[in-house]
Amino acid sequence: MPYVKVGSIDIATAATRISGPATAMSNGIGLSNMDPLTVSAYRRRSLCSIDQPGVVMSKLPQELEDTQHEFGSKLVVIMVGLPARGKSYLVKKLQRYLTWLQYDTKVFNVGNRRRIASKGDNTNGTSHSHAFFDPQNSAAKTIRDELALESLEELISWLKQGGRVGIHDATNSTRERRKMILNRLESEPNCRVLFIESICTDPVVLAHNLTMKLSSPDYKGVDEATARNDFKKRLENYERSYQTLGEEDEEDGIQYCKLINVGKKVIAYNIQGYLAGQCIFYLMNFNLSPRCIWLTRHGESIDNLVGKIGGDAPLSARGKRYGACLSRFIKYQREENEVLRQKEEELETPINYRRDRTVAVWTSMLTRTKETVEEFDPNEYDIKHIRFLNEIYAGICEGLSYNQIEQLYPEEFESRRENKLFYRYPGMGGESYLDVIQRLNPLIIELERMTSDLVIVTHRVVLRILLGYLMDIDRSKMPEMEVQLHTLYCVEPKPHGTVVRKFKWVEELDWFIEEPVDK
Amino acid sequence: MPYVKVGSIDIATAATRISGPATAMSNGIGLSNMDPLTVSAYRRRSLCSIDQPGVVMSKLPQELEDTQHEFGSKLVVIMVGLPARGKSYLVKKLQRYLTWLQYDTKVFNVGNRRRIASKGDNTNGTSHSHAFFDPQNSAAKTIRDELALESLEELISWLKQGGRVGIHDATNSTRERRKMILNRLESEPNCRVLFIESICTDPVVLAHNLTMKLSSPDYKGVDEATARNDFKKRLENYERSYQTLGEEDEEDGIQYCKLINVGKKVIAYNIQGYLAGQCIFYLMNFNLSPRCIWLTRHGESIDNLVGKIGGDAPLSARGKRYGACLSRFIKYQREENEVLRQKEEELETPINYRRDRTVAVWTSMLTRTKETVEEFDPNEYDIKHIRFLNEIYAGICEGLSYNQIEQLYPEEFESRRENKLFYRYPGMGGESYLDVIQRLNPLIIELERMTSDLVIVTHRVVLRILLGYLMDIDRSKMPEMEVQLHTLYCVEPKPHGTVVRKFKWVEELDWFIEEPVDK
Repeated sequence: MPYVKVGSIDIATAATRISGPATAMSNGIGLSNMDPLTVSAYRRRSLCSIDQPGVVMSKLPQELEDTQHEFGSKLVVIMVGLPARGKSYLVKKLQRYLTWLQYDTKVFNVGNRRRIASKGDNTNGTSHSHAFFDPQNSAAKTIRDELALESLEELISWLKQGGRVGIHDATNSTRERRKMILNRLESEPNCRVLFIESICTDPVVLAHNLTMKLSSPDYKGVDEATARNDFKKRLENYERSYQTLGEEDEEDGIQYCKLINVGKKVIAYNIQGYLAGQCIFYLMNFNLSPRCIWLTRHGESIDNLVGKIGGDAPLSARGKRYGACLSRFIKYQREENEVLRQKEEELETPINYRRDRTVAVWTSMLTRTKETVEEFDPNEYDIKHIRFLNEIYAGICEGLSYNQIEQLYPEEFESRRENKLFYRYPGMGGESYLDVIQRLNPLIIELERMTSDLVIVTHRVVLRILLGYLMDIDRSKMPEMEVQLHTLYCVEPKPHGTVVRKFKWVEELDWFIEEPVDK
Repeated sequence: MPYVKVGSIDIATAATRISGPATAMSNGIGLSNMDPLTVSAYRRRSLCSIDQPGVVMSKLPQELEDTQHEFGSKLVVIMVGLPARGKSYLVKKLQRYLTWLQYDTKVFNVGNRRRIASKGDNTNGTSHSHAFFDPQNSAAKTIRDELALESLEELISWLKQGGRVGIHDATNSTRERRKMILNRLESEPNCRVLFIESICTDPVVLAHNLTMKLSSPDYKGVDEATARNDFKKRLENYERSYQTLGEEDEEDGIQYCKLINVGKKVIAYNIQGYLAGQCIFYLMNFNLSPRCIWLTRHGESIDNLVGKIGGDAPLSARGKRYGACLSRFIKYQREENEVLRQKEEELETPINYRRDRTVAVWTSMLTRTKETVEEFDPNEYDIKHIRFLNEIYAGICEGLSYNQIEQLYPEEFESRRENKLFYRYPGMGGESYLDVIQRLNPLIIELERMTSDLVIVTHRVVLRILLGYLMDIDRSKMPEMEVQLHTLYCVEPKPHGTVVRKFKWVEELDWFIEEPVDK
């Protein structure tokens, strides 16, 4: 059977394309020697079509091949919305998701810039009191516009240095401001613009967001009542001039997306780019239900005992004991959750923010994960075996140990060591980390959409990639992350961030003990 | 290397689940012997979570295992919208897409039912004149409501017999009617409801739709002026009582999606189910731009000469000549298109409906497809190599001929012969047709989203599956479809359906000759 190494070119390409800002910068300078019209024509053409780092590769004319990473969609996301409407929450999630998909993404926050700019100016006990946000205060308005444009310039120059998605995180709440931003971006033909407006009318979420705002650096050292009063006035100032995205903006031919109450209602207008479409599909699948996502590798398999990778071995006796204990431990956690749920009911938490009673269990389609959940009762759990959760396919290295790979394929061993993220196993069907990221993408969307607790039993590489997303782990660290057998992670997405806990199975106790998490 | 057959269980499951209505019916009767509460509880639980036929498999309690196909999401889509707003167009595309993804989907059209019911009643030269649609005409209103409910009953009983998605294709243009439908569906706890409203304000599309309506069976044998006049009055009657989906419907807690001008603007409210989310992502990526999608297998490879499957062989000399001729032929077609485009410009066709100038070229990442497009100039085409377009991975059968498979693995050969669609090749990473459908799904979305011409160079199984979608080929026929080497398909999506042409490369002429298409 002739095994041919597939995809060596695209691995190299991916490595170039996703190189750090330093390389990108020097390539950017190289680019300036070229005919700018040629470069621009290519960029425009490839601007909005399919592009998935690692699995889609553009063929460029020879003179442009060095600049591969410069192509593909460049997207400028302009946020719109009143303060305390969850913009920064959306922005953080979007950045995490796009970065995980290997698009270089950066947030440019105007509020932080304002606070830096105003250092020292501490009128009224706050670095900027509500008066600064008065639409009639024309001096302040000029400063606010300048800050917004400075942020935008920073964003544009970052994109020129090789970035892919720049997010302008500010209120941008008037048509005038948005026009100003659009005008500036018109002279950058290689960028697409997407406006995302966040609207929140849910009193529970609003009250929570407001309380969060009082601990903002703007109110450091200010007592709560003063802070609350000032922020209320700031909001009123914004509300006086606020113009929601609508028909007038549509006349400008822009693309926009309005998110009302965190994915409850979504209005999308004129969405054209590939990347913009992906962003919106992701954003529309959000919810704020409290829940736990439990993640673990399968129990020890008989291949683990001899250090073989890949294959479809059954569990060892020890692995089976792990699976049995896992089912007891999750059942115990479920009962704890039921207590929480009842408390929430007593506290009259609105139904949207109460715990879902069902628990889903996902495994791969391989024997060792299926056997790990054998003791979970299908009467109590929604158990699904999902092919996308299968381990990375190691091509001709399936069934070998790392020592054997080193002896049989020393070059492969070396290139894998050099760049685990982009390395694709040789042989037909062999996968890279990037390939696995792409096949896990629909599961990430599903995971965001679900309201119930979820137990995922999978494999080393898949677990690293899932935790990479959930814990926002840097892509340089993700492929090296320690994810040992018989370790259980619990991830709770919360409005202000993600809480992660780690539990170790102690064989002698036949129970789980919590351990500190090293991110 | 121990090769274990992966997924034999789920192939069996898939085979059961996607069996025809006859089997489903008998299983349905079997189900009625069970505790209905148990059944109902399972259905509700698995109602809205991830479910992709063939790659996601539910583990059910033993007593329910026979009824696997009864589970997973049941969805009732209720269309809303004035006549001539493209509802039936959307409905047809949605049905085609969902069927291709292997969800049994059926459309229940109320207009057809009305025409059958009124046979003989040919007042005013039409089977139902505008008077029948007058909201003040209470006798007619009763009949219209009855027809809508009869359709709904038919839909519900079809779902009970194993169907997955039932689409109620009618105007459903008043809140009263929609309430009536919701009330009836309330007693069916196993169905989720999704309202989809189609709104069209684009005068070009409206004029086109109107002209289409005049050739409806309602106006058979009626002269154009009379028909146009009657239809205008029918529209006025609808418009008098039309209530668009909005805040009042939101109070009912329904999920809905409004599509304005074929994907230009989309409003999605309260979307909760997995399947509903997929439908909306698909619908939001539509466009009506005129374009050609060219599809072909790679040129002859040296493995083709000896009948080996899989692998990554280069092209034969003949295969290279095919590739060179393909690039000349597409260049010629491009020039023809440019002539059409200029004519469209002279006719002052609105910019949305003019041909896009760019041409995209997609290949797989395998050598034989890349070599086939070697003569395409990257200065003129947007060329992309995409891993999702790789051939089905044949696991342990890679590099063998069908004769060798029959000799080495007679049982595999037999089970593949019996059910090619659900058959998964043995060995780690081995794929089934269903697996390939799932990995092609993002490309189908992209293909719908694009406005430019597209040339796809891929492999036998992938080409069958893509044509299966584009030409709406029955799943029983798709895996058996003849797709010979050196044959080029041209698919043009048009508002009223898809036009397919087929071209054969004639080696002696070194050019393509059109041949009739046998669907």
